[in-house]
Parts: sequence; C-alpha cells; structure tokens
Amino acid sequence: MRFYIPTNIYVEKNCVQHHAKDVLALGKKALIVTGKHSAKTNGSLDDVLKILQSGNVPYQIFNEVEENPSVETVACAAEMGKAFAADFVIGIGGGSPIDAAKAIALLIANPSETETSLYTPKDLKTLPLLAVPTTCGTGTEATPVSVLTNRKGGFKKSIACKIFPTLSLVDGKYLAFAEKELILNTAVDALSHMVESYLNSQSNVYNRMFPEYGLKIWEQNKNALLSDAPIDEKLYENLMLASTLAGMSIVHTSTALPHGMSYDLTYNLCVPHGKAVGYFLAAYMKACEKSVPADVRTILDLLKLKDVAAFAEMVKAMIGTYELPRATVECFAQRMCENSSKLKLAPCELSKEDVWEIYRESLIIN
Amino acid sequence: MRFYIPTNIYVEKNCVQHHAKDVLALGKKALIVTGKHSAKTNGSLDDVLKILQSGNVPYQIFNEVEENPSVETVACAAEMGKAFAADFVIGIGGGSPIDAAKAIALLIANPSETETSLYTPKDLKTLPLLAVPTTCGTGTEATPVSVLTNRKGGFKKSIACKIFPTLSLVDGKYLAFAEKELILNTAVDALSHMVESYLNSQSNVYNRMFPEYGLKIWEQNKNALLSDAPIDEKLYENLMLASTLAGMSIVHTSTALPHGMSYDLTYNLCVPHGKAVGYFLAAYMKACEKSVPADVRTILDLLKLKDVAAFAEMVKAMIGTYELPRATVECFAQRMCENSSKLKLAPCELSKEDVWEIYRESLIIN
Repeated sequence: MRFYIPTNIYVEKNCVQHHAKDVLALGKKALIVTGKHSAKTNGSLDDVLKILQSGNVPYQIFNEVEENPSVETVACAAEMGKAFAADFVIGIGGGSPIDAAKAIALLIANPSETETSLYTPKDLKTLPLLAVPTTCGTGTEATPVSVLTNRKGGFKKSIACKIFPTLSLVDGKYLAFAEKELILNTAVDALSHMVESYLNSQSNVYNRMFPEYGLKIWEQNKNALLSDAPIDEKLYENLMLASTLAGMSIVHTSTALPHGMSYDLTYNLCVPHGKAVGYFLAAYMKACEKSVPADVRTILDLLKLKDVAAFAEMVKAMIGTYELPRATVECFAQRMCENSSKLKLAPCELSKEDVWEIYRESLIIN
Repeated sequence: MRFYIPTNIYVEKNCVQHHAKDVLALGKKALIVTGKHSAKTNGSLDDVLKILQSGNVPYQIFNEVEENPSVETVACAAEMGKAFAADFVIGIGGGSPIDAAKAIALLIANPSETETSLYTPKDLKTLPLLAVPTTCGTGTEATPVSVLTNRKGGFKKSIACKIFPTLSLVDGKYLAFAEKELILNTAVDALSHMVESYLNSQSNVYNRMFPEYGLKIWEQNKNALLSDAPIDEKLYENLMLASTLAGMSIVHTSTALPHGMSYDLTYNLCVPHGKAVGYFLAAYMKACEKSVPADVRTILDLLKLKDVAAFAEMVKAMIGTYELPRATVECFAQRMCENSSKLKLAPCELSKEDVWEIYRESLIIN
C-alpha cells in the first residue's frame, strides 16, 4: 500500500498571488502552456504574468493546446521551449494544457527523446512544473498522469512517464468565468475519479482516504450544481478542493472502466471528457454492486443518495444523455473487452456480457 | 491551505523486503541510526542489513540514540557519518532514532553547520533518508519534524529545518516484539497527534482529511488495546497505519498544547512521551469544547465515544495517571503560559486560568 504525492499543493483564494516566492523559486526562464482563450479570460494568465514580471523572469507563451492534446502539439511546444532555453514550465487551464505541460517539461529536459518515446517507460528527469488549474475536474495538478492523443497511432492514453507538478496553485475564483455546462462536466469528471478509485482492484484502506474525504466535500456542492441559482464564491472553492482530492484519489489506483470507455467518445466523437466519463458511471456502479455492495453503499452514503438509481438520476440531470447507433456501440464494447489492463482494474471480474450491459445502460442505443 | 508530504511511504507486511530496489536507489554508503536494542530484537535491523548486503552497500551502525535524543548525540553520529563518507542515512526504531537520523542526515550533508545551528531556520539540502518505524506512535516517518533535546540549553523542541524522509517503509510485524505498555503509550501518542491536529488553529477543511480518516482507523484498535487478549497481526498493521496517518495529520498544523505540556514531563521527569502527552489530552478537549463543540463532537463520534468523560476514561485505562506536587505543576503551568507559540495553536484563546485548569484536570496534584 503506497502513499506518494510529492507535489506542493496550495488550495486557497488568490493562491497565485500568495505564493509568488514559490513560483519564482522554480527557475529563471519560463515556458507557459495554455489553451487558446480561457487562461486569458479568467485572469489566471495575468496572475501568473504579474509574478514573472515582478521577478524579471523572461517567458514565452505557447497557447495552442487543443482539447485532447496530441503528441504532435506537445512536440511543437517542446521545440519552442528548447529554443528559448526554458528551465521551468507553467501549465494553466483545464486538463489539456496541464497534461500537455507535463510532457513538454519532460521533452525539454531530455532533448534526445522524441514524442514517440513518451509511451515507453523510462526513468527520466523533468523540468520543474507549476500547474494552475482553472476547471474543477481534471485533478491533474495532484497526479503524475498526462493523457495524450496520438493521432498517427489513432489512440488516446496516459504516457508512460509519471510527472508530478512541483507546485500546484489552486484557486476557485477562476471558475467564475466558466460556463455552467463546463463546471457541470468537470465536476462529474471529479466525481468519476473518486468513484473509479473506490471501486477499483487497486483500492485499499490506505488510498481510500482520498475518495472517502473527497466525496464528502463534493457532496456539499451537489444541490447547487443541480439548481439554476447562481453559484457563489464559496462553492467555487469547494469544487476546486473536491477536484484536487479527486485527483489524489487516482494517483495510487488509476481510473477504471468509465474512463476507459470514455476515450472512444472523446477521441472519436468529440464528446467533452466529463460527459463521456459520466455517462458510464452509474452502470459501472451497478455492475460492481453485485460483488462489492458495501463499497457501493459507502459511496452512496457519502453522497447522501438512496440508491444507484438516484445516483444515475443525479448524473443525468447534470450532463444529460447520449445516443449512438447499435453498430457503433458494439464496436466500442468489443474494443473495451479487449482492454485487459482497464478490465483488471474493476473490483470484480466482468464478463463480456457485463461490459455490454454497462454500455447498454449508459447510452441510448438506436 | 497546504498539502505537502513528499515522502514515498509504503505500509504493508514485509515492506522492507518488498522495496529493496527503492532502498538501494538511495545511495552507495549507508549510516544506520538506531537505539541500543529494539532494532536488533524485532528484526528490523536484520531486514535492512540483508538488503544492503545483497546490494554490496557498505554501512556503519550508530546504535547509541537515547530516548529524547540530544543534539550532542546527533553531532557525534554525524561525525561518524562524515568520516565514513555516508551518502544516505537509515533511521530505524521509534521516534528517537528516526528524529535523530533526520538531523544527522542534515549535518553530514552540510559539514560547515554545527549542532547549535539546527535550531536556526535555513534552507539546507540533506542526504537521502530511509525511515523504518518500529513503534506505532511517532509518525515521524511521514513528517518533517525532528524533536531534539538541547542539554546545555535545558530545552527540548523541534529543530528549525524541515526534513521529510525520502522513503518510509512501515511494517506492523515489528510491533509483535514490543511490550504491551510501549504499544499503548505510542498508540496514545498517535491519538494525540490527530486530536491536536483537529483541535488546532491551523486546522482546515483540507488538512482535516488526515485526522478524520486516521481517527476512524485508530478506533478499530480501541477495544483490543483495552483488552488483555493478545494482539493479532492484523491489529499491528492497523496500529501502524493509524500512526502514519496521525503523523500526516500534524504535518500542516503541528501539534498543540498537550505536546507542549508533555515536554516538561519527558525531559525533566523521564515520563515516556506517549504517556506524558496522553495525560493532558482529555482536559485539552474539554477546554476546547466550550468554543468548538462540533469539532470535539466529531472526534468523539469517530472514536465511537459518548463524551469527553468517556474519552478520559479510555485514555486512563491505557496509560494510567500521574501524581505531582502542586509547586511543580505551578512551575510547569507558568512556563506553558509563557509559551505563546504553542498557545496560539489552540482553536480558541485560553486564559491562564484555562491553562491551569488543564493541568489540574490532567494530573493528580498532591
């Protein structure tokens, strides 16, 4: 049973401003990695730039990280970082820019490695990395995970190298600029991290601390997420805290089937990540309920929900439903049945019929 | 709100054997730091030596760490390590050898520093450090704390440098060789870490994860600790897990008044650490109950206890009572009232009268 989360993680209002000293201690030349717009809109980029300017730290900005970031994008940003001789990297945004920033920090620190070698396990050093999350789902600020899409290979999966951020500065205020739909999608992603960590063959009495505590914090946001009333500042902070704890939850277990099942929907069908994962969550719980009913009950109790049906209703109210033709679903289910590394993370053995049942319950098949 | 515990911590049976590779990755020449006997008796030293021998790693053993280790002892061991050119340190035992090992690793890595500078805050590098705890109270395997006694100065307190072990290997099997009294004393120390972290001005919704989860794990040992029946293997594992989680609890808050009050008893009167802390615990809870009743209630609920009186009874059954003359207690109470850094860690302002009341309730005064 292992505990290892070496990142220095602060969660608080005006977190970036409060920890300028820690940021400036990371290095002398920064490569900033963001998506196209949100880091500008929500003020997070400005907060970081002010600190770099106050410390006279030169920086360059790579702002072209797409959703489901590709190894090609990562390679391109790494070239920019090498040419600039960046000695630390700053990832700002949702899971995509921060996951990309991890791989970019690795490629800059190891100029002889190429993007194709990211999927090969190696014990490589990386540049110091600051993560500033601006959505409440990824949890990547607290994990060593970087999920990248390999367009040539036609797949999306975690790279082999484990890269924890050195420092993560987590501030709920950036959520005030996000659409409610994005908040709902990412909050469901955080929920998935905790459920998939708890219902997981790698789950144990040591690492269950994170999902047990995180689910209790997440539950406090449930009613506000389901209501049409505006979300207040306190809730944003709590959503961010829950998301970080949800990230910690998967450090020692990894995610399970719902994440594995989601990748076909995000990669092939452009469904947002949180929605794609969330569709499969209730049916995964139901499939686990036969063999580990007490564990499913604990999750429901922490969420103050009566049963799995109530859980399914809650998630549906947050992210809706999704329709697909039978032939497509069959193709996805077949692929999942061949993914033994994900299947073995379920807390019980799942037959082909069980897997197909999860798809059937999760999607509207026409 | 901060989370930072960079130590790689495994908790499992045969933990040292399982992680030989991680141990050998720490360095090429080891200084082993232990107390006089227990590391030999309980097999932990042998387990470590087998790994070093398998990797042909030269080592020297410093086995003269006393209870309440002194800066003089630390300086002596550091000289031995420097002469041997040790490049990593291994602390095996209870809190005393591991706390000493932290300071020793620091002094070897910084030959220009002396033992008197340990209490001055400085940003110093240290040698890699392996911790192998063999008692279930200290939690030092998960904290940056090293409490040393300065005989010349006549005080006992944490050194200024924060030193997390690089790797901690935690195995309950070593407890099978400990006297029941030692297990009780150290289990009460772990309990104190969680109570003092929870009832603490530095406590927050982020760092409360550790005591909340740890108290639940600790509670599972309660009845067995109070019974005369032999303790089984599963319980030893659980006691060790609770102790490590209790260590994590004080990383972000530090301990509070009971620990502060205990030092006069350990340093001046040779009372074992766990007992000395435990005597003050119930009265501290009672003093806090007026201002933070809900927090005290949460602790009692997690421990499945009716009220603070039941908590006091439980602790008394584990560690007994202690008598002191009034004049001595008054002297200690006076000193505590002047210790503003500990007093400000209480979750509420405590008057001189409140402090005196804690002493009066905690000790039998004659």
